Amino acid sequence: MKQQFLFDKIPAMLHGGDYNPDQWVKYPEILKKDIELMKEARINCVSMGIFAWSMLEPEEGRYQFDWLDERIESLYQNGIYTILATPSGARPAWLDKKYPEAMRVDSYGQRNHHGVRHNHCPSSPAYREKVREMNTQLAKRYGSHPGLILWHVSNEYGGACYCPLCTERFREWLKKKYKTIDQLNDAWWSSFWSHRYTSFEEIEPPFQNGETSMAAMQLDWKRFTTWNTQDFMEEEIKPLREFAPQVPVTTNFMHLYGGLDYAPMAKDLDVISWDSYPFWHRPGESMGHTAAVTAFSHSQMRNYKQGQPFLLMESAPGLVNWQPFNKIRRPGVHRLSSLQSVACGSDSVQYFQFRKNRGSFEQYHGAVVDHEGSDRTRIFREVAQLGEDLAKLAPVAGSRVKTQAALLMDTPNRWAVELISGLSEHKEMMETVCAHYESFTSSGCDLDVISSDTDFSSYKLLILPMLYMISDELGEKLKDYVKQGGVVIATYLLGYVGDTLLAHLGGFPGANLREVFQIWNEEIDSIYPSERNAIRTGDGRLYEVRDYCEVLHTEGAEVLASYEKDYYRDMPAVTLSHYGKGHAIYIGARVEEDYLKKLYFKTAAALGLPVCSLPENVEKHVREDEENLYTFYLNFNDQRVSLHSVTPGGDLLTGQEIGDTAYLEPYGVLCLKSPKS
Amino acid sequence: MKQQFLFDKIPAMLHGGDYNPDQWVKYPEILKKDIELMKEARINCVSMGIFAWSMLEPEEGRYQFDWLDERIESLYQNGIYTILATPSGARPAWLDKKYPEAMRVDSYGQRNHHGVRHNHCPSSPAYREKVREMNTQLAKRYGSHPGLILWHVSNEYGGACYCPLCTERFREWLKKKYKTIDQLNDAWWSSFWSHRYTSFEEIEPPFQNGETSMAAMQLDWKRFTTWNTQDFMEEEIKPLREFAPQVPVTTNFMHLYGGLDYAPMAKDLDVISWDSYPFWHRPGESMGHTAAVTAFSHSQMRNYKQGQPFLLMESAPGLVNWQPFNKIRRPGVHRLSSLQSVACGSDSVQYFQFRKNRGSFEQYHGAVVDHEGSDRTRIFREVAQLGEDLAKLAPVAGSRVKTQAALLMDTPNRWAVELISGLSEHKEMMETVCAHYESFTSSGCDLDVISSDTDFSSYKLLILPMLYMISDELGEKLKDYVKQGGVVIATYLLGYVGDTLLAHLGGFPGANLREVFQIWNEEIDSIYPSERNAIRTGDGRLYEVRDYCEVLHTEGAEVLASYEKDYYRDMPAVTLSHYGKGHAIYIGARVEEDYLKKLYFKTAAALGLPVCSLPENVEKHVREDEENLYTFYLNFNDQRVSLHSVTPGGDLLTGQEIGDTAYLEPYGVLCLKSPKS
Amino acid sequence: MKQQFLFDKIPAMLHGGDYNPDQWVKYPEILKKDIELMKEARINCVSMGIFAWSMLEPEEGRYQFDWLDERIESLYQNGIYTILATPSGARPAWLDKKYPEAMRVDSYGQRNHHGVRHNHCPSSPAYREKVREMNTQLAKRYGSHPGLILWHVSNEYGGACYCPLCTERFREWLKKKYKTIDQLNDAWWSSFWSHRYTSFEEIEPPFQNGETSMAAMQLDWKRFTTWNTQDFMEEEIKPLREFAPQVPVTTNFMHLYGGLDYAPMAKDLDVISWDSYPFWHRPGESMGHTAAVTAFSHSQMRNYKQGQPFLLMESAPGLVNWQPFNKIRRPGVHRLSSLQSVACGSDSVQYFQFRKNRGSFEQYHGAVVDHEGSDRTRIFREVAQLGEDLAKLAPVAGSRVKTQAALLMDTPNRWAVELISGLSEHKEMMETVCAHYESFTSSGCDLDVISSDTDFSSYKLLILPMLYMISDELGEKLKDYVKQGGVVIATYLLGYVGDTLLAHLGGFPGANLREVFQIWNEEIDSIYPSERNAIRTGDGRLYEVRDYCEVLHTEGAEVLASYEKDYYRDMPAVTLSHYGKGHAIYIGARVEEDYLKKLYFKTAAALGLPVCSLPENVEKHVREDEENLYTFYLNFNDQRVSLHSVTPGGDLLTGQEIGDTAYLEPYGVLCLKSPKS
Repeated sequence: MKQQFLFDKIPAMLHGGDYNPDQWVKYPEILKKDIELMKEARINCVSMGIFAWSMLEPEEGRYQFDWLDERIESLYQNGIYTILATPSGARPAWLDKKYPEAMRVDSYGQRNHHGVRHNHCPSSPAYREKVREMNTQLAKRYGSHPGLILWHVSNEYGGACYCPLCTERFREWLKKKYKTIDQLNDAWWSSFWSHRYTSFEEIEPPFQNGETSMAAMQLDWKRFTTWNTQDFMEEEIKPLREFAPQVPVTTNFMHLYGGLDYAPMAKDLDVISWDSYPFWHRPGESMGHTAAVTAFSHSQMRNYKQGQPFLLMESAPGLVNWQPFNKIRRPGVHRLSSLQSVACGSDSVQYFQFRKNRGSFEQYHGAVVDHEGSDRTRIFREVAQLGEDLAKLAPVAGSRVKTQAALLMDTPNRWAVELISGLSEHKEMMETVCAHYESFTSSGCDLDVISSDTDFSSYKLLILPMLYMISDELGEKLKDYVKQGGVVIATYLLGYVGDTLLAHLGGFPGANLREVFQIWNEEIDSIYPSERNAIRTGDGRLYEVRDYCEVLHTEGAEVLASYEKDYYRDMPAVTLSHYGKGHAIYIGARVEEDYLKKLYFKTAAALGLPVCSLPENVEKHVREDEENLYTFYLNFNDQRVSLHSVTPGGDLLTGQEIGDTAYLEPYGVLCLKSPKS
Repeated sequence: MKQQFLFDKIPAMLHGGDYNPDQWVKYPEILKKDIELMKEARINCVSMGIFAWSMLEPEEGRYQFDWLDERIESLYQNGIYTILATPSGARPAWLDKKYPEAMRVDSYGQRNHHGVRHNHCPSSPAYREKVREMNTQLAKRYGSHPGLILWHVSNEYGGACYCPLCTERFREWLKKKYKTIDQLNDAWWSSFWSHRYTSFEEIEPPFQNGETSMAAMQLDWKRFTTWNTQDFMEEEIKPLREFAPQVPVTTNFMHLYGGLDYAPMAKDLDVISWDSYPFWHRPGESMGHTAAVTAFSHSQMRNYKQGQPFLLMESAPGLVNWQPFNKIRRPGVHRLSSLQSVACGSDSVQYFQFRKNRGSFEQYHGAVVDHEGSDRTRIFREVAQLGEDLAKLAPVAGSRVKTQAALLMDTPNRWAVELISGLSEHKEMMETVCAHYESFTSSGCDLDVISSDTDFSSYKLLILPMLYMISDELGEKLKDYVKQGGVVIATYLLGYVGDTLLAHLGGFPGANLREVFQIWNEEIDSIYPSERNAIRTGDGRLYEVRDYCEVLHTEGAEVLASYEKDYYRDMPAVTLSHYGKGHAIYIGARVEEDYLKKLYFKTAAALGLPVCSLPENVEKHVREDEENLYTFYLNFNDQRVSLHSVTPGGDLLTGQEIGDTAYLEPYGVLCLKSPKS
Repeated sequence: MKQQFLFDKIPAMLHGGDYNPDQWVKYPEILKKDIELMKEARINCVSMGIFAWSMLEPEEGRYQFDWLDERIESLYQNGIYTILATPSGARPAWLDKKYPEAMRVDSYGQRNHHGVRHNHCPSSPAYREKVREMNTQLAKRYGSHPGLILWHVSNEYGGACYCPLCTERFREWLKKKYKTIDQLNDAWWSSFWSHRYTSFEEIEPPFQNGETSMAAMQLDWKRFTTWNTQDFMEEEIKPLREFAPQVPVTTNFMHLYGGLDYAPMAKDLDVISWDSYPFWHRPGESMGHTAAVTAFSHSQMRNYKQGQPFLLMESAPGLVNWQPFNKIRRPGVHRLSSLQSVACGSDSVQYFQFRKNRGSFEQYHGAVVDHEGSDRTRIFREVAQLGEDLAKLAPVAGSRVKTQAALLMDTPNRWAVELISGLSEHKEMMETVCAHYESFTSSGCDLDVISSDTDFSSYKLLILPMLYMISDELGEKLKDYVKQGGVVIATYLLGYVGDTLLAHLGGFPGANLREVFQIWNEEIDSIYPSERNAIRTGDGRLYEVRDYCEVLHTEGAEVLASYEKDYYRDMPAVTLSHYGKGHAIYIGARVEEDYLKKLYFKTAAALGLPVCSLPENVEKHVREDEENLYTFYLNFNDQRVSLHSVTPGGDLLTGQEIGDTAYLEPYGVLCLKSPKS
C-alpha cells in the first residue's frame, strides 16, 4: 500500500515554521545564513508573507515582489518548501489612512485607530477589494511555483466589528434566519423588559453600553460573527482557487478560542492547522494536565476533518512573550511537546518563528535562531535534534488516530453556557470539558472531540459535558443514538434550552431526554467556592463535589451515587438508565476527577475499548495506517517511569525492539511500530 | 375598634407578586394554568405591566390593551387584585430610534445605545411626553376597574444622566439654590485649584474625565439627581392622580440604594414599597447578620411614612440570578424571610416573579412557578404553605411597630462620607450604620431608622453613626434635643462639615456640638487594615478597634474608655457628657460590636426601653394596634433554640398558647398575640 | 571663607511652604492670624499663587492683584519671603470654555472635560499665549519686589496629550530626529506586523485603541512628551527671565515620577526642588526602607545640578489624603523626615501646605495649621520645634554631599524596561534600582544617582542596575571608564538593546560590553513569583534568587557565584572580569539584598570609600563645605540605638560634643560638625 502524505512534494513530516525575511531585506548576510541554519536543523518547509503587506505593496498599487521571488526560489533550490500566506491579518498604514472604514469598531461603537493586528472590519467592501487584489497578485505570481505547497489564509482570524456595515449585515442575516420580526421576537423572548422590536432596522449589535441583557441576541451575534468572518475568508480564498486551483488552503486556528465557531469554517479548508502554545511549567499544574488540555485541542483539530492529519502550524521552541511570566521550557520539553502533536495526529512541527525579530512586539518570543545569530544556542541544538527525530518518524506521516469514543463539544453550546445570567459565575465550561477529556484518556484510550453534526454511529460512547443547549433535532439524534445501542454520559446543565436559549418547558432535561435519562432535574444549587458537598457511591466511597449540585428525582433510573449532605442529602446525584439497546448515565454535580476516571475506565472497558493502566503524567496515543499501528508513549514526568502491558514493537526513534515492559526516560518518548493484528 | 387595612378591598395580608402575562400571550394554556396555580398558592394580588410598554404600544400611537383587559378582569373574577405599573422603566426600541435624546448619557458624556433598563434621560421633554401619554391611557382605561388597588410607578428608579439637557437643568437648580455664582463659589470652596466659576454656564456635571475633584459639586449633583428623578416621577404621577384620583400610588425602592435620597421622594407616595433580596447563606456571614441588615431596611422603609405599614413588593422564593454565586435558599428560609418582613411592618409578601420567563435576562431568577410548570416543585409548595401562614396573620395587618429609639441615617450624609478624599478608604459607612442597628436590636428592642427632618421628640435615644455632615440647623436641633433630656450616642467623624462640605472651623465636633459632647477631637488616625488598637473600659476589659482612632481631649466629659496603645495610649476613646437634661456619648474609634451591644443594652435598659435577652441569631419584633401586641420571634438558626421571658400569648401561626418559655424550631417563627397591658 | 547660600536674602535654611491666601480673601481675621502663626513657627519663606489663576484673572483680561500685593508686602514686612508660582497648573473655567482646544485629549483620542489639574494641552498656541500674558503680568508686577526670591514655574508638570496639535508636533519631532521615513521604519523595526509607514503623516500617537504594539514608537512618544513639556516650560520661563532676570527659577519635581525625563528639564532651571511624601509606617515595610527610597530621590535631585543644594518644596507635616490609608506620622517622624532631607542636600523644609483648605479636594491633607485654627495642635507644635532645629542648622546651608560612587539611572532606560513585551511582568525596575541604592548606602557611604550624560571620571565605582538600553556611544563610554580603572557592577538585562530598542546582535551584553564583562548571556529565564532559586558563593553560602535568572557562559570572567538548582545548576550567576585598569562585576539574577550589601561593602572598602558599620534602620549622610564636615546620623527606629566609630564633633542640634561612641534616641538625629582633616 502506498503511504498517503498531506503533500506529495514532502514525503515526510513537515519541519519548519514562520519565516519573515521581509524584516531582514537590508541584512543580506543574515538571509544567506538563514538557509544554512535551516538545513542544519533539517527544516523542509517555511511559512512566509504572514504580515508582509507593507513590504509587498508599500504604496497603494505599487507591488514589490522581488524579495519574495528570491526567497521562495532560494529556499526551493535548497529543498525547502513554502507555505505562502495572504497578508490580510495586518494592514499597512496607508490603507487605514485612505480607507478608515476598514478599521474595526469596538463594542462601544468607537472606531479604533490604526495599529496592532486583527483590526479590520470584515464587512468593508473597500477592504475586501484590496484583499482580493493582493491575493490575486499572489496567486497569479506564485501559484505554479514548484516550491509552493499550501496557502495560509490570513492569520488567526478573530474578534468582531460593531460598525454600521456589520450592523447592516447582521440585520440581513437575522432576516434570513427568522423571516419575520415577530418570529425573531418570539425566539429571543424579547417581551422581557419590553425589548420587542417593531422592525429589523431597530436591531443593533450588543453594544456594551447598549443591549447587554438579551442572551439570545448575543448568541446570534456570535453566530453572525462566525458567518461574517467565514464569508470574508471565502472571499479571500476565491482568487487563490481561481488562479492556483492545485494548491490547497488552510488557515491557522487557536487553542480553545471562543470567538469563532471553527466547525463550519473548517469545511472551506483543505487542511486544518493550528497554533499550540501550552503553558508548560505553570506552578500548581501538573505537566500531565497541561499535556491533556493540549491533546484535547489536537483531537478537536483532527476531527474537524474526520481524522485527517493536521498541521501544527506554530509553536514556540523557547518561551513566549505574552504570558505574565514567560518561563523557558526546560531541556527536553520542546521535543516532548512536539512529538505529542505528532502522536495526536499532526504531520508537522512548525514554529513561530525561525529568527527572532530585532525589534517590536514579539522581540522576546522564542525562535529557532536567537538575536545572537548562530547555531550555538541550546534552543537551536534542540530544534536540530528534533529535526532528526522527525525524519525517523516519516513512516507515521499520513496515518490516523482512530477511536470509538467521542466527546461532544459545540462552540455555540459553550457560548450558550457562558451567556447564562445567573447560577454560579464559576461556569468553567472549558475546564470541565477538558477534565472529562483528561479523565477518559487517562485510561490510555484515545477520545475524539466532535461537534454535533458528526455521525455518531461509529462511536460506542458519547460524552456530553455541560450540554446545555439542545435543539429538538439534536435531542432526537441523541435519543436515537441510545435507542440503537449507544452509551451516553452526560452532566448537569443537560438540555435546559433550545437553540435560541428558550428554556425547555415541562422539566429538565428537555428535548425529550427526560425519557432517555429517566430523571427529573428539579433544581440546580450553586454552592459557594468555599463550600463542598460529596457524592457517595454504592461501595460507600465519597467523592468531592463543588460549584453545582442538581436536585434530581429518578423516574426509572437507577441511582449510582447520592449526595452526602445538605437538604438534598441521600437524593440521587448520579443515575443510570436503560433505554432501547443503550444506556445513559447522568452526573448531576461537578464531581472530582478521581470519580470520572473510575467511571470512564469502567465504562470503556465494558464496551471493549482498549484501556490500559498508565503511570501518572504519561500519555498513550495510537496512530494507524492500513498495515501498522504506531503507539506513542509520552512521559510528562521529569523522572524515569516504567511501563507494563506495552504494545510491543520497534521504536522508530531509537531502532530498539520493545517488549511488554519498557522504560520512559524523563520527558522521554517511544513510538512503537507494530503490525495490525 | 375597626382594623385599618392598607387597601380596603383586601382585608388581609397581600400575597402575590410580579406577573408578566405579556410574555405569554401566545401560550393561552399557560395563562389559564396561572390562575389555577395562584389560587392554589392563596395569591390575592399581582403586579402587572412593569415592563410591558412594547406590548402596550408596539408602534408609536398604536395601543394594544386587549391582553391586559382580559388579565385584569379574569384575575378579578378569581379574587385576585391588580397593582398596575407604568412601563417607563424600559422603553421599546421604536422609541429610542425615534427619540435618541431619550437615551441616557454616561459619566464620560457618551450617549448609550438602546438596551437594558433604566436607560432614559429624566429631563427629556420627548420622553416625558411619551410617558404622560402612556400613563394617561392607563389611568383612563383602568383607573376605575374594581380589581385595581394601586399604581406602581415605573420600577426601581435609579442612575443618572449627564446629557446637555440634564446639564442645563443642573445649572438652573444651582441658580435657584445659590442665587449668585459668588455664593456658589464660596460654598464649594472653588478657589482651591483655581476652580472658581465666572458664570453658571461654565458648570458641567462631574464627568469622570472632567471635574472629579470638587466634592461639594458632586454632592450637589447627587442632590440634583434625586430632585430631577423626583420631578420626573411627579410628572409620571400627574395623569394617574388626574384620571384615577382614588387609586393610591407607590414606587418600589431598593435595599441601601445610594443613588437617590428616598426621603423626599417618599412624600409624593401614598404607600411605601420595596424589593428585598437578602444574601442568605453567604459564607462567613451569620444568618442573624443578614437578617439584621434586612431589618435595617425594613425599619427605614416603614419610617419613610412614620410607621405606616409598607409593602414587600419583590422578593425571591428560590434564588436570584445577579449574585456571583446564586445559592438556593434552604427549605424554610423563604418562610422565615417573608415573615420577618411582616414582623418589621410589611403588610405583604410579593415575589419577583410568579412564573419564570422562558428566555432572556432573568431566566434563572427564582419564581413561584418553574419552567417545569406545575405545582410539584418544592418552591411552589413552600409558597403555598406561606399563603396559609399569611392568612392566619390577617389580624396583624394594619398594626404598627413602635419604639422610643432611633438611628439617624441621612442619604446626603452617606454621600458626604463617601466623597471624602482621604482618611481611610475603608469608609464602610453602611456596614457601620448596620452594625449599630444590629448591636442595638440584639437587645430585643426595635429601632427606628429616621432621617434628620423627623421630629426627635418622641424618642428617648438617638444614635448618630458617622454623622459627618451637620448643618448649623441640625446642630441646633441635636443640641436642643439633648438639652430637653434626650440621649445621643455618636461616633467618630461627627460634625466635621456643614451641608456644602465646608469644614467647621474652631475644632471638631463642629456645629456647636463641642459644647454638647464636651470634647475636642484633634486628629483622626486612619490605621492600616492589618493593624488593630483597642479600647480599655473602666472594668479593665479590652475591645478591639480598627480603621479609625480619633485623638480626643475632654473638655468636661467623663472618660468611659481609653486607648490601649500607640501615641494616644491612655487618651480618651469613649466619653460621656451631661448637657441640659440629657447626656451625650461619643465613640471615637471603630470598635467591635461586642462593645456596642453592651453599651446599647445598658443605655436602653437605663432609659426603660423593653430590652430582653435573646439567643444568638434570634430576632424579636413587636407590632401593635390599639388593643393588642403581636410579638414575633424569628429563629435564624438551623437548630432549635429555647426562649425565656417570652411575652406570653396565642401563636397566630399554630393556635397554641405560649407561656413564659418557648421553643423555636430551626428557622421557626412565633407570632404571639397578647392584649396591651 | 564666605558661606554660600542659595538665596542671599535668606542666610539660613528655608522653612515654610505652600500658602494659599487666595482661598481666604473673605476671612481677614484668618489672614491676620496666619502671619502670627508663621512667626511663631519660625517660617521664613512661603510659596504663593500656585493655583491662583481664577483669583488673579477671574475673567479674561480682568486682573486682580490687590490681594497678592497685600500678602507679599505684609509677609515681607514680617520677614517672610515669597516664592511666587505661575498658575498654569490649573486653568480657570472661563479659559476652558473659551479655548476648548486647551484641554487635554486622552489616550483614546477623547478630549477631556474641564476639571481637576494638569489638564492642558502643552501644544495649544492659545494656552501658551494666555500663559505668556499671565506670566508677563506677574514678572512685571512682582519681579523687583524685595520679598521675592524665586519663581515656581507651574506645578508638578506631568501627563501627556494626544490631540491633533500634539500629533502634528510629534511628527515634526520625528522628522527632525529621523530625517527620512525609511530611517524611522528601520529604527522602529516597523516591518514587524506590516507596520512600515509610507509617510510621516500616517503616524499617530500610541492610542490605546490604536498602535500599542510598537515599543520603539512608544519610547519616542515618551521622549517627545518630555520635549514638548519642556518646550512649554521654556515658553513659561521666557517672560520671567525677560522682565525679572535677577530672580532664579525652579519647578517642583516628584518622587520616582516616570512620566517625564527630568534630566534635560533640569538644565533650564536655576534651582532644583521637589515634593517628598514618603509612605512612612506602611505595614510590612521598615522605616529604614522607606527612608532609603526617599534618600534615593534626594540623591537624584541633588545630582540634577551636580551636587548643588536643592529645595524640599513640599512635604506633609501630618498625613496626606491620596494614599488608600492615610495614617498619621507618629510624633517625631516629621522632624526626622525633614532633617533627612537636609542631611541629603536640601537647604529647605517646605510644606504642603500652611493652612488646611476649608473645602474641596485636599481638605484632609495635613497642614501646619488645622481647621481648628490655633497653635494648640500637636502638628503645629512639632513644626515650630523643627523651626528651631533648622535655625541651629544654618551653618550647614550651602554645603554639599560628595561621594565617589554613583548609580546610573536614566529615565529613558526605565521606559525601555517597562516597554518590554514579555519576560516576567515583574519588571520592578524602580524597586530594584532602589534596592541597589539601599544596599550600597547601608555601608554608611553616600551614593550619587546620575544620568548617563554625567562625567564618570570623578567616580571610582558605577552601579548599573537593569541597564537594558545601551547605545553604542554609552557602551563605548562605559568601556573606556573601565579601561581607565573604573569599577562597574551591572545586573541582568544589561545591554540588550540600542536606543531605538533594536536588539544588539551577536550575543548579550551588547554594545561591545561582552568584551568588558567577558561573558555571554545566552538565555533569560523568568521564573514564577512562587518559585525561587539561589546562588552559591565561593564560601558555600546561599542567597535567594527570584524573578530572573540569566544563563551565562564565561568567556574569561571569573565566577563569583553559581546557580544552586534547575537546568542551569552550577552555571555562573555572578562573574568578575578584569579589563584595562578596571574591573567589571555582572549579577545575572535578581538576588536578595543581603548578598548585595556584602558585595557593595566589600567593593567600596577595597576602593577606599569611607564605609562603616551602622545599626539597622540608621542612616549616615555627610555634607561638607570647604572647611567642615557635617555628619548626620538618623535613627529610623522607634528605639534608642548606640553608634560606634562615630566621626566625632559638636552636635549642632544640642550643642553637645560627641566622641567615638554615641546614642541616638528613638527617631533621633545627630548633626556633628567637624573640621575637614
